[in-house]
Amino acid sequence: MSSSRILISNVRPAVDGGRFPAKRVAGAPCRVRATIFRDGHERIDARILWRREDRPSGSSVLMELTNPGLDEWAGEFPLETPGRYLFTIEAWTDRYESWLADLKQRAGAGSAVGPELAEGIEWLAVVRDRARGEDRKRVADGLAALQKASSSLDSVLQLACAEELRRAVRRAQPRPDAVMFEPELRIIADRERAVFGAWYEMFPRSQGKIPGRPSTLLEARDRLADIEQMGFDVLYLPPIHPIGRTHRKGRNNSLTAQEGDPGSPWAIGSEQGGHDAIDPALGTLEDWDRFVAAAAARGLEIALDFALQCSPDHPWVKEHPEWFYRRPDGTVRCAENPPMKFEDIYPLNFDTDDRMGLWREMLRILRHWIGHGVKIFRVDNPHTKPIPFWEWLIGQVQKENPEVVFLGEAFTRPPMMKTLAKAGFSQSYTYFTWRHTKAELVEYVTELAHTDMAEYFRPNFFANTPDILPKVLVEGGRPAFKLRLLLAATLSPSYGIYSGFELCENEAIPHHAIPGDVEYADSEKFEIRVRDWDRPGNIKEFVARVNRIRRENPALRELSNVRFWPCDNDEILFFCKSTEGRSNVVFVAVNLDPSGPQEGHVRVPLEELGLPEGAACPVRDLLTGARYTWGDRNYVRLDPAVEPAHVLRIETGSAT
Amino acid sequence: MSSSRILISNVRPAVDGGRFPAKRVAGAPCRVRATIFRDGHERIDARILWRREDRPSGSSVLMELTNPGLDEWAGEFPLETPGRYLFTIEAWTDRYESWLADLKQRAGAGSAVGPELAEGIEWLAVVRDRARGEDRKRVADGLAALQKASSSLDSVLQLACAEELRRAVRRAQPRPDAVMFEPELRIIADRERAVFGAWYEMFPRSQGKIPGRPSTLLEARDRLADIEQMGFDVLYLPPIHPIGRTHRKGRNNSLTAQEGDPGSPWAIGSEQGGHDAIDPALGTLEDWDRFVAAAAARGLEIALDFALQCSPDHPWVKEHPEWFYRRPDGTVRCAENPPMKFEDIYPLNFDTDDRMGLWREMLRILRHWIGHGVKIFRVDNPHTKPIPFWEWLIGQVQKENPEVVFLGEAFTRPPMMKTLAKAGFSQSYTYFTWRHTKAELVEYVTELAHTDMAEYFRPNFFANTPDILPKVLVEGGRPAFKLRLLLAATLSPSYGIYSGFELCENEAIPHHAIPGDVEYADSEKFEIRVRDWDRPGNIKEFVARVNRIRRENPALRELSNVRFWPCDNDEILFFCKSTEGRSNVVFVAVNLDPSGPQEGHVRVPLEELGLPEGAACPVRDLLTGARYTWGDRNYVRLDPAVEPAHVLRIETGSAT
Repeated sequence: MSSSRILISNVRPAVDGGRFPAKRVAGAPCRVRATIFRDGHERIDARILWRREDRPSGSSVLMELTNPGLDEWAGEFPLETPGRYLFTIEAWTDRYESWLADLKQRAGAGSAVGPELAEGIEWLAVVRDRARGEDRKRVADGLAALQKASSSLDSVLQLACAEELRRAVRRAQPRPDAVMFEPELRIIADRERAVFGAWYEMFPRSQGKIPGRPSTLLEARDRLADIEQMGFDVLYLPPIHPIGRTHRKGRNNSLTAQEGDPGSPWAIGSEQGGHDAIDPALGTLEDWDRFVAAAAARGLEIALDFALQCSPDHPWVKEHPEWFYRRPDGTVRCAENPPMKFEDIYPLNFDTDDRMGLWREMLRILRHWIGHGVKIFRVDNPHTKPIPFWEWLIGQVQKENPEVVFLGEAFTRPPMMKTLAKAGFSQSYTYFTWRHTKAELVEYVTELAHTDMAEYFRPNFFANTPDILPKVLVEGGRPAFKLRLLLAATLSPSYGIYSGFELCENEAIPHHAIPGDVEYADSEKFEIRVRDWDRPGNIKEFVARVNRIRRENPALRELSNVRFWPCDNDEILFFCKSTEGRSNVVFVAVNLDPSGPQEGHVRVPLEELGLPEGAACPVRDLLTGARYTWGDRNYVRLDPAVEPAHVLRIETGSAT
Repeated sequence: MSSSRILISNVRPAVDGGRFPAKRVAGAPCRVRATIFRDGHERIDARILWRREDRPSGSSVLMELTNPGLDEWAGEFPLETPGRYLFTIEAWTDRYESWLADLKQRAGAGSAVGPELAEGIEWLAVVRDRARGEDRKRVADGLAALQKASSSLDSVLQLACAEELRRAVRRAQPRPDAVMFEPELRIIADRERAVFGAWYEMFPRSQGKIPGRPSTLLEARDRLADIEQMGFDVLYLPPIHPIGRTHRKGRNNSLTAQEGDPGSPWAIGSEQGGHDAIDPALGTLEDWDRFVAAAAARGLEIALDFALQCSPDHPWVKEHPEWFYRRPDGTVRCAENPPMKFEDIYPLNFDTDDRMGLWREMLRILRHWIGHGVKIFRVDNPHTKPIPFWEWLIGQVQKENPEVVFLGEAFTRPPMMKTLAKAGFSQSYTYFTWRHTKAELVEYVTELAHTDMAEYFRPNFFANTPDILPKVLVEGGRPAFKLRLLLAATLSPSYGIYSGFELCENEAIPHHAIPGDVEYADSEKFEIRVRDWDRPGNIKEFVARVNRIRRENPALRELSNVRFWPCDNDEILFFCKSTEGRSNVVFVAVNLDPSGPQEGHVRVPLEELGLPEGAACPVRDLLTGARYTWGDRNYVRLDPAVEPAHVLRIETGSAT
């Protein structure tokens, strides 16, 4: 504890008292709040000191007392460009304002003012000697006026309270007891894509038209128009590297591959190269560059998988045997993710004596792909590697490339999920696929949006993945696909689907490792798939509509603005998102039951919207174009065979 | 961030991440909880390391994984005697249990076990070489059995899982990657009086029988029997030191004293001495010692006021002019507590250059009174002195006298109230006198009992003070006195009244400084009062009953066990307190309306009491002796003219 009489505490944003950075989006300023006070009755003043981590000097901005009853101060500093920022708070006794407050106190008590006036004059002379430019003149003028004033309290007060004088004194007066908050707090300012984006996952080798033949990157390029039309922002590809032959898995995860089985893309590395190579079946590095450029031309960013594991044929196994776990008998231990086992994969040994060699190679791999247009990495199973490694790796990358975004694919217990996010992952996979009922969704989204997780954990709600086929999709069919997509896309600023979702693919087989669960039949992880991407029954037009709604409504770019409102039917989830100034207000009512229509009454707390009791809101359904007038209590009926939801925007001003 | 693969976080008890100590009562162990995990699938183990702050070495105790889904670990260490304790947590990879878990995993998969068995044998040999005594033999036996085992998974598992072997390995195996949580966390273990006590405040000079003549300490001694009979634990006296003459206040806070006006006891110091002296009108130091001993003989501890301010006649004003604020014209600034002003008082200047001289003198004063039997100090206006001063002072005192209790009298904004408690005050005055409605009481007590404040802020609910005469007492009369006493005494483990409360004194005059408020007419602060302590209409018998109920029901010694339960009448507050094993369960239903009877239905959530649906509880009203049978829903009618409340205890076993 410092020996200062001024205490600065509860400084926000901060994660774990400053041990980890809080996250923001560059462009908007960072609002800083703190509880600042001192003993006694003296007034205080405070400022934010801030700088970019990569620059030696910074700037400062004064704070304001926003809640005197709780000693709450606030201010903001700019986060103009992506990068890492440091800030802290400095506070000091405001001797002039303390003197003024004391004087005003006496006004009520009707006291004489002789000695008090002398005190003020003495201090103003000190301030004048220290002030510069305009401020010096203003303080000198104020001082001269006070010296000439009678000792009548009223006339002294009038002169001393002049706004210009007070502002000049605020800037110029000495701060001998200034105290600084410790530690410096950190902010990661990302570009908006770290928060907001619609993701589409596909295996590039399964984008062809001839059954059994893998497509190349250049062939997969032909799918880009389709993905653009659906309105996605990010195209995420599983690993594109050479695939091992030893213990290669066959179709449906069988332990022995047949001739022609392509193997899992996550069994990385063969004599044709490792993590910095491209599977020759997909093409060359030049093909890759063309694929990335073609995607960019359609507004699609590529996210590449970063999976730190090796097939037994990976070059590292020979070049760096010390990077792998060996048993007493010399055999290498294979990977596990209980209850799953992966005989085709060796994990890396992060306890290796060559720790820095291993870490630096990982950094080299990332920089290699950054050099080839990848600014987003989807990291496979980060929870089986050390947290300090991720903190170092992401920090090193973002030091040179602050625009790079990392999505962490951890499905594990909450403490690890949270700590990975704290350590630097820009966004994270979530439990969304296991949250179905209204109570589950409200509880989970409330935790993400309205607890301290909001400062560091950014969800990406994938509605399915190659590994996760939720039963609701198997049992609920097309209406379930629509409702789960709509939930993901409107609840979370980032969301994604794995290809086939838009075709309502849901052929399931019993999960090979989790009793009672199911997984995709004929998983693309182990075989080449060919699909008719325009198959009847697809929901591509719905996906496109939802993604357009997301782009056109800034309220859907945020998470912490979500408010759940009551509905008397537990199968209907009702929530609102609105921008700070309420220029964009969206209500979403979703029927969670894909099996049939549900109806009920939803409550709109008008006062939360700044509307008077009994007000009527003109709203437009962004899914159907229908217009309604909503008030405090509204009847809804949602038939999943038609649309699973209302997505209503409050219409202001003229028609849109 | 450490470079360890093991993360220890969310360690409790901790206040502000360890910047301040948490508070406990000596006698009961300190339960420690933490979130502990590592990357990957290896198992971990953990222990608490703890010691008394005043002893160089400590001890350790293993922790248990209490919630695997959240990686929550818990353990406890003893706090045998009052004092300050330090603790932290150490965690490491449990290589043996990791190996066992891996082996069990394979059991399901039906794998062969050759290389795994070799790994286990290798590790057990290491453990054996490190183990001592019995453990060494057990590990050696286990190792030998495994070496002889077939490589059949079942037989290996059976041998490896033997409980005795696992326990021995747990104690003995190396912990090469052990990591320790930082910083060390601190605990203040107080004696129970810091938490639980009924306080009675009186001016010793006003305990006489002759109007206008101050009573001495030896005369005041005659009141002790009465106070004992009412069941109080602590007798708190305003300052007992010589009172200044300069600017002495007269009756009812008038600025000029008349001949014979005794002055405010808080205007401390005259030519007869300062903070270490006794007002000659009260007696001598020997009289003081006799008074303290007489109180002790009646089970009453003395709490002395510690008010760091001086009359202009205090010896320090001459001896240490540098300890006071001086204006440019040389005058000393008088004390203020806006909107109140105290011309008869000089505040001490804690910005003095002789800071350590001032601080040490304060410590000397406290030690002087500790030497004369005072183990409780009620500190006047601590919020106008520096927090670091209190942290130092209380720490210094408790280093030699951990039994000393400090009650902080700060009535100011929440951040300062909280920070004083964090800095070391054992207990604190509260906003209780300004909390009247059910909503206000529930919100305030919930904050005290069920937020992080419970770790460091211990309330003392005074129902009145010489400065605070709540309007409810003025307007509600005798029933209001009973209900406010009952609320204070049952909601808060520590509570108090200022003498006259038991006589339902409520003559008010407009507050001299707070418009619209009232204060006591003919305040004892400025004059000698003589009262008939057995005046008709007194509530002494009620006070005695309530204090007896408090002593006889351990549930009322705690705060964080309070649970508010529903009542359909907003004028009836209903809550429950119970001990951890539910051996003592008390329900309290209070009519908050002193003006007349209120009735309603209260709900008892039987499952919270571990009772089956539809259960019937035999309860006894501890105020009246009446017996009832309560269930889930119960009718209550409370007539304040009879009793303001039910205080019901669940009767278990035979009649009591």
